[in-house]
Amino acid sequence: MTDTDSSTTTAKAPTRRALLGWGGAGLALGAAAAGGTVAMSRAGGDVDPAAAESGAAVEFHGAHQAGIATPVQDRLHFASFDVTTRDRAAFVQMLKDWTEAARRMTAGKPVGEGAYGGPAEAPPDDTGEALGLKPSRLTLTIGFGPSLFEKYGEAFGIEGKRPAALVDLPKFPGDNLDKNRSGGDLCVQACADDPQVAVHAIRNLARIGFGKVAIRWSQLGFGKTSSTTPEAQTPRNLMGFKDGTRNIAGTDTARLKKFVWVDDKDGPAWMTGGSYLVARRIRMNIETWDRTSLQEQEDVFGRTKGTGAPIGKAHEHDEPFLKAMKPDAHVRLAHPDSNGGITILRRGYSFTDGTDGLGRLDAGLFFLAYQRDPRKGFIPLQRRLAAHDALNEYIQHVGSAIFAIPPGVRDARDWWGRTLFSEEA
Amino acid sequence: MTDTDSSTTTAKAPTRRALLGWGGAGLALGAAAAGGTVAMSRAGGDVDPAAAESGAAVEFHGAHQAGIATPVQDRLHFASFDVTTRDRAAFVQMLKDWTEAARRMTAGKPVGEGAYGGPAEAPPDDTGEALGLKPSRLTLTIGFGPSLFEKYGEAFGIEGKRPAALVDLPKFPGDNLDKNRSGGDLCVQACADDPQVAVHAIRNLARIGFGKVAIRWSQLGFGKTSSTTPEAQTPRNLMGFKDGTRNIAGTDTARLKKFVWVDDKDGPAWMTGGSYLVARRIRMNIETWDRTSLQEQEDVFGRTKGTGAPIGKAHEHDEPFLKAMKPDAHVRLAHPDSNGGITILRRGYSFTDGTDGLGRLDAGLFFLAYQRDPRKGFIPLQRRLAAHDALNEYIQHVGSAIFAIPPGVRDARDWWGRTLFSEEA
Repeated sequence: MTDTDSSTTTAKAPTRRALLGWGGAGLALGAAAAGGTVAMSRAGGDVDPAAAESGAAVEFHGAHQAGIATPVQDRLHFASFDVTTRDRAAFVQMLKDWTEAARRMTAGKPVGEGAYGGPAEAPPDDTGEALGLKPSRLTLTIGFGPSLFEKYGEAFGIEGKRPAALVDLPKFPGDNLDKNRSGGDLCVQACADDPQVAVHAIRNLARIGFGKVAIRWSQLGFGKTSSTTPEAQTPRNLMGFKDGTRNIAGTDTARLKKFVWVDDKDGPAWMTGGSYLVARRIRMNIETWDRTSLQEQEDVFGRTKGTGAPIGKAHEHDEPFLKAMKPDAHVRLAHPDSNGGITILRRGYSFTDGTDGLGRLDAGLFFLAYQRDPRKGFIPLQRRLAAHDALNEYIQHVGSAIFAIPPGVRDARDWWGRTLFSEEA
Repeated sequence: MTDTDSSTTTAKAPTRRALLGWGGAGLALGAAAAGGTVAMSRAGGDVDPAAAESGAAVEFHGAHQAGIATPVQDRLHFASFDVTTRDRAAFVQMLKDWTEAARRMTAGKPVGEGAYGGPAEAPPDDTGEALGLKPSRLTLTIGFGPSLFEKYGEAFGIEGKRPAALVDLPKFPGDNLDKNRSGGDLCVQACADDPQVAVHAIRNLARIGFGKVAIRWSQLGFGKTSSTTPEAQTPRNLMGFKDGTRNIAGTDTARLKKFVWVDDKDGPAWMTGGSYLVARRIRMNIETWDRTSLQEQEDVFGRTKGTGAPIGKAHEHDEPFLKAMKPDAHVRLAHPDSNGGITILRRGYSFTDGTDGLGRLDAGLFFLAYQRDPRKGFIPLQRRLAAHDALNEYIQHVGSAIFAIPPGVRDARDWWGRTLFSEEA
């Protein structure tokens, strides 16, 4: 990131923090305007895939949070936080500070006065490892977990505001969940084309949140497994297959409206323009899979491995003929035609976290799915898959979380969570 | 990677495996020649930085293994293996199979008949997740640990061949080593600009090695912290500082010869053209560092945080004036002028492996250093740093390993470890 605030270690020029005011003090000048020559793509449901060039900045403001319909970036750092304060004012101030930091980092700027612009006797406002790196299409997306409402509803004055759709996920057959990789009061999804930019963003938010929140678990994703830009080649997961071929496109306003964005009729009002995120850490039994025949692998998925075409078809994007597949094939079971039209927006990433102590790679898919209502999205879909999917022999769900994703930050005065925490219109 | 072997899932064209012969059966046609239009850069100590464009292939063959003097790629997957067989022939065949697989993968080709080119009733030769990806400057570098000689010297007929320089590392002050992240009979360092390509390579070698070796530990590195191309900007580590500014350049044949490559007078003969690798997993106390003042941070490193200039100087590459730094400053202690000229080639990567159960990021530097003799390189240097370095307050060494890196694979008939295991000239 380019530190435009100071050109030497000791310069004490008026800082952008002073000019803009933290916490939304009133200047209608956002990071977008301040971004100068940085190329901006549009956020939320209004995406210009041509602007998805690596290195550019993604607009932070919008009706929806960026990082959902935004063309999927290459790398992920996802963090789940526990709240550690019962002080409402301190927590709200942290959300405002986070918003300002996110506004700057997504525009390719360091937090506050930067890594070396502040007073020498104080810790720098920014940790500095992203200095000199491009914005790298960084998006930061915040969510609120069920436990925030249950544990802090009274302290934070948000009693009764838990959305009905923010259900506790049921236990699915085969779940083997590690509670240290599950749940959380808050989450932040950082996606970027450069992993150092994504790691930097989460770390700086954790630093700003010190004393108010603590990281509960985090997950690095090294390669995207889904695309929201249909013209691009579908990435392969660690099983070597193209999955998510028929994902919702970031440009498909009609499907986004129908399946992803919370409507003003859905309620509660504070969630209008938001969405719901289900995150699942899915471990793959890589070594077993790698000793499975090609025929079995293709039968399990219902696709050919080479082109990714549905069984019996020639091309990846050909309409699947479901009856040509085995009854328990993954694509057949997951297809909307088998599920009364269930459709979710997938944004998963491959992970490899070393080994498991038994000489096996701890690797798989960190599954991220956005939807308008998990009761009509992930839950019925996963009930069906958990019961029947042939893939279950080779995978195991080991982490799980659900979050309400509030609507976008409208402008330079707005902040993450305002619709939940503020009485303002 | 482009699977040039088969264009449909069922095609059974003559395969490259059949044409080339596994195990070096005699055709003088290597992956480089077979690489077609793929741009090749030169390996070993003979590097053309202009060829370091992302996506290109790095030549696998050479006097030295690639991945040492090669311009540092963006991502790392490093694996340490335990040997699980005492069958010499099986182990040597695995090394030959690994070599052929490495030759293909570094050229951007899948292993063997690829992910879908073989018989449907057998597991595919390649796991497939790198299909369609570029070679991404993948390098694969093999090493042999002390325990290979101690545990398998007799079984493998390599008794007495352990190099004197392949010492067991001493325990340094402050070491807090996890044996599950230390040691290993073998290692493979996979570097690439695309992490999926690096992960794919290690996984496929592990798969080929099944029954002969098992992964002991592995480490993903998401961002390089050193450069061997001096004209490039020095990357920042997770402390936000430029470190390794005065690293050995991949083009500096004289310094490589003096400090990195084992000479024929050094002995043993099988190591001529090789090197020694020390790997250390260095955890950073990120949260403590982030609450440290800018002044203290700069004092600890002996550099300014912004430009990376040595204390009292204006530019990163200015010659440091060591006496301007505090006596325990990292740069001052590590500088060759303070150490009788000790110089190592650094190739470290930043890592972030989730959290440690206490809400802290498990993050830091995976330090990789190549040298002609660890007794004159890492060991005396680390003795000094471990005793005095101001940085020790903020870091902890939690993993450690040392490996003898054999010379390069000369041509399409040669194989990893031939000079150690074969009686041929």
